[in-house]
Amino acid sequence: MWGSLLAARGGGTWECAQLCPIMCLACQVTVWFLLGQTQDCGCALPAGFQDVHTMVFVGFGFLMTFLQRYGFSAVGFNFLLAAFGIQWALLLQGWLHHFEGGYILLGIENLINADFCVASVCVAFGAVLGKVSPVQLLIMTFFQVTLFTVNEFILLNLLEVKDAGGSMTIHTFGAYFGLTVTWILYRRNLEQSKRKQSSAYHSDLFSMIGTLFLWIFWPSFNSAMSYHGDAQHRAALNTYCSLAASVLTSVAMSSALNKKGKLDMVHIQNATLAGGVGVGTAAEMMLMPYGSLIVGSICGFFSTLGFVYIMPFLESRLRIQDTCGIHNLHGIPGIIGGIVGAVTAVYAKPDIYGDPGIVHSLDFHHFKAWSTTKTQGEFQAYGLLLTLAMAFGGGIILGLILRLPFWGQAADDNCFEDAVYWEMHEEKSTVYLPEDPTLKPPAPSVPLSPSVPAAHLSSSEPLGHSVPLAPLVSSTSLIP
Amino acid sequence: MWGSLLAARGGGTWECAQLCPIMCLACQVTVWFLLGQTQDCGCALPAGFQDVHTMVFVGFGFLMTFLQRYGFSAVGFNFLLAAFGIQWALLLQGWLHHFEGGYILLGIENLINADFCVASVCVAFGAVLGKVSPVQLLIMTFFQVTLFTVNEFILLNLLEVKDAGGSMTIHTFGAYFGLTVTWILYRRNLEQSKRKQSSAYHSDLFSMIGTLFLWIFWPSFNSAMSYHGDAQHRAALNTYCSLAASVLTSVAMSSALNKKGKLDMVHIQNATLAGGVGVGTAAEMMLMPYGSLIVGSICGFFSTLGFVYIMPFLESRLRIQDTCGIHNLHGIPGIIGGIVGAVTAVYAKPDIYGDPGIVHSLDFHHFKAWSTTKTQGEFQAYGLLLTLAMAFGGGIILGLILRLPFWGQAADDNCFEDAVYWEMHEEKSTVYLPEDPTLKPPAPSVPLSPSVPAAHLSSSEPLGHSVPLAPLVSSTSLIP
Amino acid sequence: MWGSLLAARGGGTWECAQLCPIMCLACQVTVWFLLGQTQDCGCALPAGFQDVHTMVFVGFGFLMTFLQRYGFSAVGFNFLLAAFGIQWALLLQGWLHHFEGGYILLGIENLINADFCVASVCVAFGAVLGKVSPVQLLIMTFFQVTLFTVNEFILLNLLEVKDAGGSMTIHTFGAYFGLTVTWILYRRNLEQSKRKQSSAYHSDLFSMIGTLFLWIFWPSFNSAMSYHGDAQHRAALNTYCSLAASVLTSVAMSSALNKKGKLDMVHIQNATLAGGVGVGTAAEMMLMPYGSLIVGSICGFFSTLGFVYIMPFLESRLRIQDTCGIHNLHGIPGIIGGIVGAVTAVYAKPDIYGDPGIVHSLDFHHFKAWSTTKTQGEFQAYGLLLTLAMAFGGGIILGLILRLPFWGQAADDNCFEDAVYWEMHEEKSTVYLPEDPTLKPPAPSVPLSPSVPAAHLSSSEPLGHSVPLAPLVSSTSLIP
Repeated sequence: MWGSLLAARGGGTWECAQLCPIMCLACQVTVWFLLGQTQDCGCALPAGFQDVHTMVFVGFGFLMTFLQRYGFSAVGFNFLLAAFGIQWALLLQGWLHHFEGGYILLGIENLINADFCVASVCVAFGAVLGKVSPVQLLIMTFFQVTLFTVNEFILLNLLEVKDAGGSMTIHTFGAYFGLTVTWILYRRNLEQSKRKQSSAYHSDLFSMIGTLFLWIFWPSFNSAMSYHGDAQHRAALNTYCSLAASVLTSVAMSSALNKKGKLDMVHIQNATLAGGVGVGTAAEMMLMPYGSLIVGSICGFFSTLGFVYIMPFLESRLRIQDTCGIHNLHGIPGIIGGIVGAVTAVYAKPDIYGDPGIVHSLDFHHFKAWSTTKTQGEFQAYGLLLTLAMAFGGGIILGLILRLPFWGQAADDNCFEDAVYWEMHEEKSTVYLPEDPTLKPPAPSVPLSPSVPAAHLSSSEPLGHSVPLAPLVSSTSLIP
Repeated sequence: MWGSLLAARGGGTWECAQLCPIMCLACQVTVWFLLGQTQDCGCALPAGFQDVHTMVFVGFGFLMTFLQRYGFSAVGFNFLLAAFGIQWALLLQGWLHHFEGGYILLGIENLINADFCVASVCVAFGAVLGKVSPVQLLIMTFFQVTLFTVNEFILLNLLEVKDAGGSMTIHTFGAYFGLTVTWILYRRNLEQSKRKQSSAYHSDLFSMIGTLFLWIFWPSFNSAMSYHGDAQHRAALNTYCSLAASVLTSVAMSSALNKKGKLDMVHIQNATLAGGVGVGTAAEMMLMPYGSLIVGSICGFFSTLGFVYIMPFLESRLRIQDTCGIHNLHGIPGIIGGIVGAVTAVYAKPDIYGDPGIVHSLDFHHFKAWSTTKTQGEFQAYGLLLTLAMAFGGGIILGLILRLPFWGQAADDNCFEDAVYWEMHEEKSTVYLPEDPTLKPPAPSVPLSPSVPAAHLSSSEPLGHSVPLAPLVSSTSLIP
Repeated sequence: MWGSLLAARGGGTWECAQLCPIMCLACQVTVWFLLGQTQDCGCALPAGFQDVHTMVFVGFGFLMTFLQRYGFSAVGFNFLLAAFGIQWALLLQGWLHHFEGGYILLGIENLINADFCVASVCVAFGAVLGKVSPVQLLIMTFFQVTLFTVNEFILLNLLEVKDAGGSMTIHTFGAYFGLTVTWILYRRNLEQSKRKQSSAYHSDLFSMIGTLFLWIFWPSFNSAMSYHGDAQHRAALNTYCSLAASVLTSVAMSSALNKKGKLDMVHIQNATLAGGVGVGTAAEMMLMPYGSLIVGSICGFFSTLGFVYIMPFLESRLRIQDTCGIHNLHGIPGIIGGIVGAVTAVYAKPDIYGDPGIVHSLDFHHFKAWSTTKTQGEFQAYGLLLTLAMAFGGGIILGLILRLPFWGQAADDNCFEDAVYWEMHEEKSTVYLPEDPTLKPPAPSVPLSPSVPAAHLSSSEPLGHSVPLAPLVSSTSLIP
């Protein structure tokens, strides 16, 4: 069966079509064999697991459906890469942190960690959205999850940096990794797909589903891995305040930067979330609601500014084609978050935390028993720099791998187009006509099939005149 | 930068465009300064916080997307006003209830309370949807949150009224406040926007997302602030039963009141939720599942009746233009809920609750130590009347403020239109044409831009030939 | 009022329109009277109640919105039948399991059980989607909930079979019940509605909302009724692994079975969930993550295969018209799940569970105190066979009842069409025209109504008259 199918497929739109099933199965089988030594441990179910899960699959998935003809791929490929990513992350993180007696001990905590790891891949997906094939995405997931795990291990376990909500490990890493990849994969003639790169009315509403679920559950995201009790509570509250502030600032900036004072949906979909990224590192520290509001406002401000001024600059000068604008939503706010974390650590005062509080919340145990808040701040800064270095380095290597010509990439004039990777059913079906008698043709004697519409308008015409109608009417049947 | 932007904006669609960013920033900065004295307290995370949050942002946001060209504003402005409202509510309620030693103590419980407060603003937003600018909404939020806090303080702390799910404080208050505002803001020539005030096929489906999330999480809403344990459990169960009953009754009424027995999507979107509003006050009392079913059925009955008979009457005779029909979803069921609460309190019998149960569940402490169930019932009724008075009075004052001509309102023929406040990307882009080679123009020598299409259907053609276009074009208007 | 309304309704599209409200009210009143003896008990709130609730109302509701013109009915009728089903299930299961001292004791656990029961009806709804009236659905719900309760009672209480996630009781039963009903209701001329049976671009995206929420919360579904602690934790983890594996396998198969290697949205929407069905029975057993991955992969494999090869065969040869393909999503994986459960029970070894672990997790109490794992495996197999028998028998009886001609079924050429049961607002409204001054007719003197557009393009007209078409066609590009 398989052999004949592969043969039959020659000359399709997607040149290396057989790669996708092979790749998916290869990924799955790898995980099969490796997960052989797994056992589940009876850890308690932490609240917020489902919240983070919702963010990764519904939040990121629908956030990227804003393109008018790339909704299937946005939500479908995000589903695919996340489903593979969580399995691979479970394995890697299991070997690193939960390997006992020849078995990986799996608990719900590991599932949250895997979701975090995949969130970083979803961020990077935003940069290359519409320009890569599912095969490339699976390779990227494999590579990025591995690098993420290494980077996180160095930061959290070796440098003992604090990063509760992952401003550095998830957002900064994901963003600059994705940006480097898309920089390497630069497409000179992408403007051939420019008209498909815009949004449509309803696709923007689908995208808002993603935005709102991300916004709502972000407090759970930033607090999911905190010590339970006080720190978790603080993380949720700080994130909540920061997010609320970034909404107002984003709306203000979006209107202020528009010639007619109008709002731009792209800013509302993205910059409103910047506050959640910005307090990620410092969320469980004593940032206080006041500090969170200021951080959220700053992030909303720079994120919107990024969409208006920095993103076009990146594309035209630095050749970085960032489809979703992840530099504005995850890159800038992630770096702000890392800096805020370092500063908050430095200024952690015993009169607010209490001396044991500082030791506890900054983890001054083991080799860091001699630490001061100042050294902790320095380590936070080193962590941020290391993350950037890893992202650049890794992104370049992966980008070069993905540039190989046999991964089934779409052509430059076929980017941002679902039909390359998806069987479009409505192309087969005819246009749906509602049953309104008043609109029916009075004399249906001319046998015109609806699928070959106006192009056949009368014999006396030169074909050329009716031509513009044909694509228009066919677009009617496709766009909805 | 700002100066030149403001200057460049003269003569735009939205006359006072510079107001929006100024207003948003002003709101944010106010909260900044005032939240300076805030501290978070280590209260436990009550379950259901995220549920209420989801209702306010996804539920109310998407419920209002039913208008064919007002989806961006519905979900976007709801996002904006909720994000400002929760901050302002945190402040006000903090000063009133949680101010200790110069600091406002913030806990997750405050966040739920803030969401409740904002829910009341979302209700009122439904009445003025499509007719006010974001600037007006921010003013309304500021004003209504303040009034809500005062009214709630009087009811819950002075009159010691029970109102677990906020039938009175949230729904009745929000509905009659919003209706009064829209009555003051009456637009004589609104029928100029009538064609935009209808729904489209997919916008109704987006709206159902809102309905379902509201429906699912309403048990959490009504039980979120109850005493934990028995009362909370009772509140969730009663709300669940009431909601289920109102679905069946709404469907029955919707079909019965239609000439052809067809269902109306508006009723399914709204009246099915009336049961949740109706048991709000009595939810944690011993209403019993049986009582809840009856209350839910009554609410579903009157809510659907309201859409068919009362709403057109309000608009034509009383000049109340209620876009979402909040009078039917929140007004009538809210009053029913208040009455049910009073009656349930009066008939609270020691043989069901037990004597300590009554004292505990009706809070007969402090100055009410002498109370009987009858006096409690009277207080409930006074609470309802006071709420109505506050809503009318406050609504008139705010309405007069909002009638001032410089808030950037849309003209009468431009209501229910996103393009007034939002940059519409697709207007810039050309029509998307799918890549179907069979439809491609064989000879693209005639330079026709796709946006001026059928107009070139040359003059020499007989009438019959253009007929097939009619159903095609009508399908254009239906499919979206 | 009612009398005149019923009279006025003669000759409508929906012949027995008066049946719907009567039916709905009858259902509601029945529940009223019977719920009289209900009391709520103070059980603890199990986590995951809201998750299962979300799956039934948002998950199944939106999963079925994929048809281009049946979204209102998919989500609306699912809402209706679920709201009635949970009430009826509460009653039946209350009488059977929680009847004490003349009262049904209601707790949140009962609500979860009711949601489970309704999930089985939602599954069966998928088979008859688009071909039955709401009246028929209410009858089906009444009948199926009753039969489900009987079947579940026999399996769980008499045979003491384990079925934590309901592979047998929910999915296999629901699927084969629904398939039998649709087999009895076979419509010979259904191809007259064929063009309406396809999906549209945005309707497929709505359907993905359902898929993702089902996918995310399936671990809660399979673990909601498990013993708390270890077994619940195991159930969540196994389901998570199985689901992840079925995503990759489904994508691989979907691409492999397509001539051009393209993905099919139907497979992504459905087959990715097969893993959750497949581990339902064995979820809380010691299946281990490794076993779950394999089960998930097998389910994804056969589910996709089912869509491509088995479903067309069922329709053409066996006359089973399965609208949503529930045989592939619930039927095949359900049977696989039942078999996996039996095998896992047989191979439950004391060296993994520990002797008390086996007795505890397989419930070897009461009459089964003498049981071995082998006899438990046999009972599991008997349970599966009994479920299939009940589904076939019950489906035939119900199918014959539903074939009676007075339930308001749509005609063969009017299936999959919302307009039969729903008042369509947009048919009244005219096409929306965006306010773009450059597109406005320069001389609007010719009174052309926008709803009769191109038909008037007469031959003798100068070019200026055809201008009104421009905004119409441009609306094509805008509305979607």
